[in-house]
Amino acid sequence: MKKIINQAVEKGKKFTMLGKVADYIPELGNVDPDLVGICITDMEGNQYCGGDYNKYFTIQSISKVVSLILALEDNCKDYVFKHVGVSPTAESFNSITQLETKNEHKPMNPFINSGAIVTLSMVNGIDYEQKFNRIKRMMEKMINRDGVEINSSVYQSERLTGNRNRALAYYMQSTKVFNEDVEKILDVYFRICSFKVNCIDISNMAATLSNGGVSVYTGERIISKETVKIINVIMSSCGLYEGSGKFALDVGVPSKSGVGGGIVSIVPGKLGIGVFGPSLDLNGNSIAGIKMLEYVNNKLELSIY
Amino acid sequence: MKKIINQAVEKGKKFTMLGKVADYIPELGNVDPDLVGICITDMEGNQYCGGDYNKYFTIQSISKVVSLILALEDNCKDYVFKHVGVSPTAESFNSITQLETKNEHKPMNPFINSGAIVTLSMVNGIDYEQKFNRIKRMMEKMINRDGVEINSSVYQSERLTGNRNRALAYYMQSTKVFNEDVEKILDVYFRICSFKVNCIDISNMAATLSNGGVSVYTGERIISKETVKIINVIMSSCGLYEGSGKFALDVGVPSKSGVGGGIVSIVPGKLGIGVFGPSLDLNGNSIAGIKMLEYVNNKLELSIY
Amino acid sequence: MKKIINQAVEKGKKFTMLGKVADYIPELGNVDPDLVGICITDMEGNQYCGGDYNKYFTIQSISKVVSLILALEDNCKDYVFKHVGVSPTAESFNSITQLETKNEHKPMNPFINSGAIVTLSMVNGIDYEQKFNRIKRMMEKMINRDGVEINSSVYQSERLTGNRNRALAYYMQSTKVFNEDVEKILDVYFRICSFKVNCIDISNMAATLSNGGVSVYTGERIISKETVKIINVIMSSCGLYEGSGKFALDVGVPSKSGVGGGIVSIVPGKLGIGVFGPSLDLNGNSIAGIKMLEYVNNKLELSIY
Amino acid sequence: MKKIINQAVEKGKKFTMLGKVADYIPELGNVDPDLVGICITDMEGNQYCGGDYNKYFTIQSISKVVSLILALEDNCKDYVFKHVGVSPTAESFNSITQLETKNEHKPMNPFINSGAIVTLSMVNGIDYEQKFNRIKRMMEKMINRDGVEINSSVYQSERLTGNRNRALAYYMQSTKVFNEDVEKILDVYFRICSFKVNCIDISNMAATLSNGGVSVYTGERIISKETVKIINVIMSSCGLYEGSGKFALDVGVPSKSGVGGGIVSIVPGKLGIGVFGPSLDLNGNSIAGIKMLEYVNNKLELSIY
Repeated sequence: MKKIINQAVEKGKKFTMLGKVADYIPELGNVDPDLVGICITDMEGNQYCGGDYNKYFTIQSISKVVSLILALEDNCKDYVFKHVGVSPTAESFNSITQLETKNEHKPMNPFINSGAIVTLSMVNGIDYEQKFNRIKRMMEKMINRDGVEINSSVYQSERLTGNRNRALAYYMQSTKVFNEDVEKILDVYFRICSFKVNCIDISNMAATLSNGGVSVYTGERIISKETVKIINVIMSSCGLYEGSGKFALDVGVPSKSGVGGGIVSIVPGKLGIGVFGPSLDLNGNSIAGIKMLEYVNNKLELSIY
Repeated sequence: MKKIINQAVEKGKKFTMLGKVADYIPELGNVDPDLVGICITDMEGNQYCGGDYNKYFTIQSISKVVSLILALEDNCKDYVFKHVGVSPTAESFNSITQLETKNEHKPMNPFINSGAIVTLSMVNGIDYEQKFNRIKRMMEKMINRDGVEINSSVYQSERLTGNRNRALAYYMQSTKVFNEDVEKILDVYFRICSFKVNCIDISNMAATLSNGGVSVYTGERIISKETVKIINVIMSSCGLYEGSGKFALDVGVPSKSGVGGGIVSIVPGKLGIGVFGPSLDLNGNSIAGIKMLEYVNNKLELSIY
Repeated sequence: MKKIINQAVEKGKKFTMLGKVADYIPELGNVDPDLVGICITDMEGNQYCGGDYNKYFTIQSISKVVSLILALEDNCKDYVFKHVGVSPTAESFNSITQLETKNEHKPMNPFINSGAIVTLSMVNGIDYEQKFNRIKRMMEKMINRDGVEINSSVYQSERLTGNRNRALAYYMQSTKVFNEDVEKILDVYFRICSFKVNCIDISNMAATLSNGGVSVYTGERIISKETVKIINVIMSSCGLYEGSGKFALDVGVPSKSGVGGGIVSIVPGKLGIGVFGPSLDLNGNSIAGIKMLEYVNNKLELSIY
Repeated sequence: MKKIINQAVEKGKKFTMLGKVADYIPELGNVDPDLVGICITDMEGNQYCGGDYNKYFTIQSISKVVSLILALEDNCKDYVFKHVGVSPTAESFNSITQLETKNEHKPMNPFINSGAIVTLSMVNGIDYEQKFNRIKRMMEKMINRDGVEINSSVYQSERLTGNRNRALAYYMQSTKVFNEDVEKILDVYFRICSFKVNCIDISNMAATLSNGGVSVYTGERIISKETVKIINVIMSSCGLYEGSGKFALDVGVPSKSGVGGGIVSIVPGKLGIGVFGPSLDLNGNSIAGIKMLEYVNNKLELSIY
């Protein structure tokens, strides 16, 4: 396994120059594009790490998985999917067009920005602070450590430049998809996207899902089995934005990427994988991350299909 | 002329029940749908009025004409049309889709909401208050009376429910179409849409344009000739939202409607017409207003084509 | 006038290198891009010509005007516009998207390809041959000479490469917009687009319309007054594809362009103008043609607005 | 198992009245909407059948699976997916819009009509007849019997009313997605859609895929392992048109539906399921078919996620 890890990192490093660090948020642009890391956790809690596995990056869209988990645990599945769709989309992750052109006034799926904002509105909480704290707490349980912190310069940067997300939220407010304090719910959104994690963290997160919702360390059930299954389904078809279809062909494991450069991959019953590489392809997915997952998949035959 | 006026009002009254008062702003829904009024001003300043010509209504989108006039007077034509297009659109007046799907990141024309907000940003003013005051002053000159007032309940209603316009503005902010304080520029937008006018007022407004920009009462030049021509062009193709094409066929005079029920019509060199009827067709245009203009056009052959 | 003509040609020549000859039909690509011609006819039948005014080119989309004239003369206006819209469009002239996305299953206007094909289906004729002959005859009357000929290599080229038009026609057949023999109606379409004309011809065509439908040479009424008015309206808003809005601002006379490089311009009651220059702008309009019309308009103040 | 089969049929029968038999092809409208059948094949070749499992219906879009199998076996995977995408789509199966609006001129995936036609063009054959025969032969191997027949009235009906498919094909021809004799390739398309199969047939087809491409009866390898995996991936995300996302949540096995009322479902390594019920939901999928698959899945926990 150690050899596979090392070779995966070597493979990944070769591709970092083909991509570009996310720059739509100024703060994200200041990261070293050549970082590459991986961590694999098995169902006994053994971990195999390589490269820059302990470098921190912001979790970004991988946080959408946590919001969706809580929304599903807090509500029945039918309620959740009455407010957000389960259809993959070939539109960009921040597209506003489909909110207007599709008949149903609901976002296509929970992993595009509009869908994630709606999902957030279905997470319980007496106020926005509690909503935030419940998501933070769930994340900490999944990554198996307390005290996740926010990268405050990224958070401030997102808040200042998040007009596209404001447009999405006000649009949904106008079509009565939800009824929230737009600035406050976006503040929660910007904060949970700014959590600092490393490959070990997201590998643990993946392992919790691969293990059916039960911590591989404590044996505690963190997420219900039914929710885990739903997460796997939606990750499979929508987890890598417009690259989801090709990724399913090439790797074939439920995964979710973030523009911070991380990808979590669920190999049900077997492994939880976290990869990292801030250089992104045109779809906004970590180039080195995908290459490492392809390599590991080739060696270990992980595809669920 | 008096007979034509009376018969036009009779004609208009027959159609009011086929439409619906605007209800996207709650306050607008409380108007008597059967009101019908008309006022025609000739180039000597004679006026012929009928029906509910002195009932007040909110000017709504007709205010977009005034913003565009000032934007054109404050900047060169090329500058203005680098920021907003001159293409008619078959999309709804509050569509956000075309902002995303069209290659150029600018609104299609100055008479849809997004375009009007951009136009507003090109009106000079050291602050938003001065911007507002200059528009108010231009409007007062055109309608030939001081002290136009705001319908404050309509204004409050627009402000509270204007999330679609917030979405448009934040979207344009995110694509760098402009750089404004979104809440403040929208506040100006909501205020100028809430001006209370009657048929005499908008007939005077029309007469100023029909007379080439010169007041028919004082002989003062209020608007440059070149600006007037541009206004006529854009009214001709974009003045009645998606109904513009059919209206050009049926009536054929540069006009602009508002969801308050008013329509201004420019008969260059001859007449300035203001009609009113709050019952709207599916495109958001006054049903009785269009019928009255068709009638008057049939009698007087006004079409510019 | 002679001086204006000469200077217009000089002006036009300066811009030919900025555009590109149409190449979507291979045969069209073989034309000298630097050709520039103009012919102006007044209501007494006097003609002023300059540049390559007697060079022949294919009429292309200008033929859509003739089809629309006959469809309007053969049917009532309401019938025609129940089958084809009067809305300008910001989509490309051969767009198929709007046929699918707009609620009404009808083309946006008679001057985009889909609309022109539907218009053709409303021209009377016991068979497709008669349909073709009636259009040819109307064209000959308007251009004041018999024996217009088809450029057969262009016609063959269009027929062989006209798959986009086949797609449009079969699509409309499938949505029951019309019910025709697709290959046969397209054959008429390809033939009338391939008529060879020069600036004198299209200037005569324009003059007939400027003179209200009456030949300036024989005094014969060729087209009804009502039809002429409708043609002027639709030319004003849809005549230059996506460039229609800007052209209305800059020139402001009802006009129709073709990718062969011709533009007809109607100055009602005054002039009929035909210009030619095969080098096209991005919207598919003659670059030199537009520049010449701008120049002539500046000198003679022709705008209808 | 027999009990599950019977109860599944009972369950299915309750929902047939909620849907509608396909009527876009007149011939398809003449089927009894209350038919409901199921057949399950295990990896030893044992079969469990219920309801109208031996009634014949036309295979329709399930034939797209067979074309894709041959295209993949005849070409490398990269070649195939350079010509057709792997992205699910929220557009209708016969949408033409996305061919125009998406940047890449290729259909979204092989299971919408445009994609299936392109896929067909990649199946080897010295002429269209051989192309057809190779697809027929592959189908016969998968369904484990010779002599599949065409329902000639459905075939004729498709051919006469297939103008939407003609539009798609000519459109793709015009954008150089492929270069085929449109009528001839569509003839192959219409013929393979008209094959008469029953639940046993499509259950065998499914079993061949579930068994990794090897016949459960003869042990012969019919399809390569790599191709089977790709088929599973694309069925998972695109197999039930716009209903694919919800079906993945509710059932979670790679499946493909046809408007004839059939659905094939692959339970890798375990079962091949064929269900039938001509009453369709709004997405064009068999209502009873989906309900039976949900029931069987609930009992046997088949989801791959």
